[in-house]
Amino acid sequence: MRRVAILSYGLTKVEKHWRKSLRELFGDAAKEALKETKIPGLDALIVGNMCASDLSDQNNIGALLADHLGIIPSTAYRVEAACGSGGAAVLAAYASVASGMYNFVMTGGVEKLTDGVGGETTRSLGKAADAEYELFFGSSFVSLNALIMNHYMHVYHVSREAFADLAVLMHKNGARNPYAQLPFEITRETVLNSEKIADPITLYDCAPVGDGAAAIIMCPLEDAPKYSDNFVEISGVAGATDTINISSRSDLLSLNSTVVAADKAYKMAKVTPADIDVAEIHDTFTITGALSIEDLGFSEKGKFNKLLSDGAFEPGGVVTINPSGGLKSRGHPVGATGSYQVAEVTMQLMGRAGRMQVPNAEAGLTQNIGGSGSSTYVAILRRAR
Amino acid sequence: MRRVAILSYGLTKVEKHWRKSLRELFGDAAKEALKETKIPGLDALIVGNMCASDLSDQNNIGALLADHLGIIPSTAYRVEAACGSGGAAVLAAYASVASGMYNFVMTGGVEKLTDGVGGETTRSLGKAADAEYELFFGSSFVSLNALIMNHYMHVYHVSREAFADLAVLMHKNGARNPYAQLPFEITRETVLNSEKIADPITLYDCAPVGDGAAAIIMCPLEDAPKYSDNFVEISGVAGATDTINISSRSDLLSLNSTVVAADKAYKMAKVTPADIDVAEIHDTFTITGALSIEDLGFSEKGKFNKLLSDGAFEPGGVVTINPSGGLKSRGHPVGATGSYQVAEVTMQLMGRAGRMQVPNAEAGLTQNIGGSGSSTYVAILRRAR
Repeated sequence: MRRVAILSYGLTKVEKHWRKSLRELFGDAAKEALKETKIPGLDALIVGNMCASDLSDQNNIGALLADHLGIIPSTAYRVEAACGSGGAAVLAAYASVASGMYNFVMTGGVEKLTDGVGGETTRSLGKAADAEYELFFGSSFVSLNALIMNHYMHVYHVSREAFADLAVLMHKNGARNPYAQLPFEITRETVLNSEKIADPITLYDCAPVGDGAAAIIMCPLEDAPKYSDNFVEISGVAGATDTINISSRSDLLSLNSTVVAADKAYKMAKVTPADIDVAEIHDTFTITGALSIEDLGFSEKGKFNKLLSDGAFEPGGVVTINPSGGLKSRGHPVGATGSYQVAEVTMQLMGRAGRMQVPNAEAGLTQNIGGSGSSTYVAILRRAR
Repeated sequence: MRRVAILSYGLTKVEKHWRKSLRELFGDAAKEALKETKIPGLDALIVGNMCASDLSDQNNIGALLADHLGIIPSTAYRVEAACGSGGAAVLAAYASVASGMYNFVMTGGVEKLTDGVGGETTRSLGKAADAEYELFFGSSFVSLNALIMNHYMHVYHVSREAFADLAVLMHKNGARNPYAQLPFEITRETVLNSEKIADPITLYDCAPVGDGAAAIIMCPLEDAPKYSDNFVEISGVAGATDTINISSRSDLLSLNSTVVAADKAYKMAKVTPADIDVAEIHDTFTITGALSIEDLGFSEKGKFNKLLSDGAFEPGGVVTINPSGGLKSRGHPVGATGSYQVAEVTMQLMGRAGRMQVPNAEAGLTQNIGGSGSSTYVAILRRAR
């Protein structure tokens, strides 16, 4: 299996991109990634997206974007795993380079959520859950996660305020991110006093709805020095699944897909959680962030709040969690989120993260979830310069 | 790069599967494929689908199906390239086995189209075209192909009857296929006298709308004898793109994505069109079948009708085209069609095709198109027993 490098990345600010079509938005990210390398061309484009069929009347976006980028006749297809689409696309792209089939592959994600009117966007996002056993009975994504959050507080005796504090840290980080959708600081009270969405989840426990695109260019590691003087190795990559319907799980408080995918990726990269300097994790809701921190091995179960209040997850702490601000503050353009995470950790390891920069970051991790933990895609990156 | 084998396949009849949900339908095909091998488990599931978001309110079907099959925590994701989804999933699955990332991978496709009411299915299928430059202006899939067919007849002086004869051959073949949606013979007059859909295309020039699922299990070729005594090698596999909007093409009468993908796959497999005994090609409309035959190298441009009337494409002819009946008679469950094709050619090369069997088939080809030729995925298979 060939080792694989990331040569460059591109991303757009997450916001309401009403003036840009799907292809133009992805084009912005892709062209930024292409500008930074001297590769002769792209052999393939593998793109993550969830909602374009519902909200832009467009499927077949692999071909659409290959056409827009002018890389015809290179092969192209779309990967979809709900909110984990970007991470799954990274997995597929990695395999295509590692196998020797392709030398230069662009992966990325694009999502336009804010074109939805009425309940269209909420309805579209709900299709990540089990239509027949969850949606049909009136569950929404936030209500399922509210159940989990309530259960967590009950079992582990963790206060509601601890979750608010995680949101506060995310916004503190995101305030330094030029690509963030909500680049401003908040207080614990902002979270506690914001509108209740599904008790105990309030508005500021939730990731916002936004539009965005991110792109990454991969090539074989051994060839990378020819095309860039600053690149990163993907030293581990894995995916795993869990039941799509949360009622089928033996333990609501463990994201088993994250546990399994992380374990595989750590083994492949020959590292442990203690080796990770910076992680971009999937905090759709603050409860999702808390479970992710624990299931990635950055905290014992039920104790994320202890390390959080000790500053372990802040920039310069034990492991910097979401220097981008995470889904909570950078935003969550669902099918592109996994691509943002890989671009952001690459940026950190290249030393190009500006005001977000984690000093001396050598190893990073991304964790991208599809559905309510029904799948997780983890990548481990290391500085290769 | 490791060589890759197909160990087994499973498929359902294409029809109106109103009593089965998406997961049950795929489960039927997947369980048939699993039954035929002695593999210890599946490392990954990569599934093609186009319309489940629109017609079943369900995305995230990689996780949905992994859950239903009981293969959690194996990784899973969906691949989408419109009608080429199944073929693109084969490409992704091939890379994941060839790379060494996974040993046992199931790929397949599932589509439930007949649950759509009113114009839902037509609207959903239209999303394979360019929403902003084709759909928005009122083009439908069939109208775009009607333009191409008219142009073909004008440029090459080929009669409308020649296209009808291609449909006649497809139905003659499909009448012997127990999995076919329309397993009956027709005459030239059936085609000519059927309802006009978009002049010159009539109802019997078109593939029907149906539900179906197909699955294939891959493993490294060198390990295949441990798990099956009858297997097939994927000796070539490639994808390519063309403009999504047909008005941007320099030649409406050439499927350039097919030309490029086939050329790559032939080179990878070290064969020429003359070496292919049996091919399952993408005949959404009779014009698509004609262009495909030519662009795969089985006929000179503008002359498919000559070889057709000579019997070259019939079972036992120069190259047997669509012994399954093709999209026209077997049916076209869009995101599953590419998986059907690979399962059907595997069946031929394993010598298990029953009344469809092409004698002494040693090498086969599949060609699966997304959109109006905006992408093509080609696989070349060879008998490996």
